[in-house]
This record gives sequence, C-alpha cells and structure tokens, in this order.
Amino acid sequence: MNEKKEVGEKAVEYVKDGMVVGLGTGSTVFYSIAKLGQLVQQGLSIQGVPTSEQTAKLAREFGIPLVSFKEIEGIDVAIDGADEVNPDLNLIKGGGGALLREKIIAKAARTFIVVADSHKYVDTLGAFPLPIEVVPFGYEMTMKHIRELGGSPNLRQTNGTPYLSDNGNYVVDCDFIEIKDPIALERELNIIPGVVENGLFVDMTDAVITLDSNKNLITKVNK
Amino acid sequence: MNEKKEVGEKAVEYVKDGMVVGLGTGSTVFYSIAKLGQLVQQGLSIQGVPTSEQTAKLAREFGIPLVSFKEIEGIDVAIDGADEVNPDLNLIKGGGGALLREKIIAKAARTFIVVADSHKYVDTLGAFPLPIEVVPFGYEMTMKHIRELGGSPNLRQTNGTPYLSDNGNYVVDCDFIEIKDPIALERELNIIPGVVENGLFVDMTDAVITLDSNKNLITKVNK
Repeated sequence: MNEKKEVGEKAVEYVKDGMVVGLGTGSTVFYSIAKLGQLVQQGLSIQGVPTSEQTAKLAREFGIPLVSFKEIEGIDVAIDGADEVNPDLNLIKGGGGALLREKIIAKAARTFIVVADSHKYVDTLGAFPLPIEVVPFGYEMTMKHIRELGGSPNLRQTNGTPYLSDNGNYVVDCDFIEIKDPIALERELNIIPGVVENGLFVDMTDAVITLDSNKNLITKVNK
Repeated sequence: MNEKKEVGEKAVEYVKDGMVVGLGTGSTVFYSIAKLGQLVQQGLSIQGVPTSEQTAKLAREFGIPLVSFKEIEGIDVAIDGADEVNPDLNLIKGGGGALLREKIIAKAARTFIVVADSHKYVDTLGAFPLPIEVVPFGYEMTMKHIRELGGSPNLRQTNGTPYLSDNGNYVVDCDFIEIKDPIALERELNIIPGVVENGLFVDMTDAVITLDSNKNLITKVNK
C-alpha cells in the first residue's frame, strides 16, 4: 500500500467547488495534485496557487487552472507535505527547498492541511536538518550567527555549486539535533539579518492527515 | 557649515591601520568614505566592505581596497548613516534601499558608528516611513500582514515599476506614525513570511556622532 498516495488523496476532501487552493511541493502532495487534476476533469472548479515552479509545471500538466496572488483576496485551503511533524503539529519543512513560498502560502491560507506518511512523526523536532533560506550576500557571516544559536549549518550545494531557491537565495541545512523550543528558535533565526526565512512552521497547521500504527487513515486536528 | 561633512569626517577617527571597515551608504557617510580615501592615499592600510553597489563604486573611485565576506573573519568598525535616531540610539534606516546589506554589516561589526546630522534626532521613531524589504513572490499578501500590525505600507516604485534592492527584492515604505516598541515591532515584522528584513536597527549602535543645538560635534555612546 502506498502511504503517500492514501494521505495525499484524502486531503483533497477539504477542497470544495469555487475554492482558491494552495498547492504544496513534494512527493506526498503530488498525489493531492494528481487527484485534484482528476476532479477538475470531472467538473470541479478551483484555482491553484503553486508553492514552486515544479508544482506550477505539475499543476498545468494535470489541467489545474493557476492564479497569481495579484488576482486573489486570500487562499481557502492549502495542502502541503512536511519533513517532520511533532505532537503540537509544528513542522519542519523545506527539504525540497521551497520553504519560503510554502510558508507564505500556508500563512495566507484560512485552512492549512498537512499530508504526512507515518514516518514523519517525531516527539521532538530536529533530527531532520532545519532548512534556512539566506541571502547570498554575506552568507558566511549569517552562518556564523546561526552557529551561535547552537546549530551546525551546511550550505546546500549541487556539484560544488550553491543551490539556488526559486527566489535566488541560498539554503543552509542546519543540524540542531533537538529543537526543544521551536517558537523561540523560529524568532531567533528570523531576527538574524541575512536570514530570509526558516523551515519551522509553528502554530500554522490546522490538521495533519496521516496513518496510525495500524495503517488506518487518521486526521489530527489542532485544538 | 556642512553638518554632514563634519560628522562624516569625525567618524573616521574610529578607523585604525589594518582594520576591516564596513562602509555605509548615503549622503553623510559619503564624507567618511571620501576622508578614508584621503587617508589611504597618505598610507593608511584598510580593507572596506561596502553595503551597496553604489558605495562599492564610490570606494573604488576614492582608492579604498575592497574585500568580500569570504576573505574576512569579521568587521572591526562599520560607519553608516540613519534616517531617524531615538534616545536609545535605535534607528530607522533604509531610505536609500540598502537596509539588508547595511544590517548584515552592522551586526557583523565589533563597533557600529552612526553618523547623523542634527535633523535625524527624534523622541519616538516612526515619522520617517519604515522601509521593509520583501520578496516579490506574494508581496500583496505580505503587505496585508504588515497592515495587520498597524502600518500603512506603500510599495516603493520608480516610474510605475517596483524598485528592486541589490538583492532583487521589493521595498515597502510603511507608515507607522509612532513606533512605541521598536524591539517588538522588529520581531513581529521579521516573523512574517515574505519579509526579508526591516529598517529597524535595535540595540546595534555603539555610538552616534552628531551635532548639539549649538552645532558642536558630540558623540553619544550606548551604555
């Protein structure tokens, strides 16, 4: 059984006719987008706001009409994956490098739905290195300030060249081992000049769709 | 008498032989750069780190050797101007659009010196619209979130086209009228996804060089 497909398709139940839908990036939300494409072929009318160039391309292939921020007042529901989810439904995201656009869209959405296979659950965030988007100018100094917060930052590279986000920035993957206070860390990181955004999604999630230990679909709702 | 020239040249006394010097941007620090250029011609050995393309060009014209962040361990002293200075020596900066690089360099500097003519002093920050650098993606939504913090944001434009920072981002000039708690506002703004940085420089200034009401040069030092 394909866990990613199960949770990805389940999330689509939150989407109703006429909605503006934020479309996440990654291997689980892929199945949400594919399913939405099917429903659009069957007559569902929605407008998608993609979180990455990759998702924009995918949505077009599946026939989902896209819309830009200029043309909308808000986003009704956004569906996205996560690299880690903790019991408070706080997240680490951005392994795929799209964290900034994902966070802009998650914050803009009235309802933010996370799709996560059962391997994404953790008691404490931080085993997954936290992605941090930084401006190229002075990034060495920015990494030094991140180190002062207790992290071990590594500049993300492809064949020896810094990885570039869709916004033209660098991404630093930062090992914190255990993030005991994600609320504080999110703020401390963002106050560093040179940090554009970080992959901690705190107090944003409305529901997580996942599977329990018996592999039954469950929805964890934020109280 | 030229106030800007007086305070700009005075600041150069903080620069000693062998130092790495952060070079700000604007009409007051212009005179610091010009004076440093003179001293370099007379044998002073320094390396400059410019906060903008404009300042890099200027420094080259004045014969100041430039260095990139890659090549240095830290900055000994940075000199920069300000749009507003309050009694706690907190600042609004970024009228010139270079706030992000200026803030990276101010934070990296062991000593941060502000040069400000007597018109820049205010009891409460905020009469000068606060510049905020935002990513182009979703900037309409980002402006909405800024509005929720009590500001009136205006997208900076040149002939109807958005102004672009050296980092390829937009700048929003935001009227808050009175900023009673700059520490809190700096953090609230930076936690908005889409805000790259804002022009509040809180708890960064080591000294402000300015003129008193009798037009005598004075140095206000942070306790």
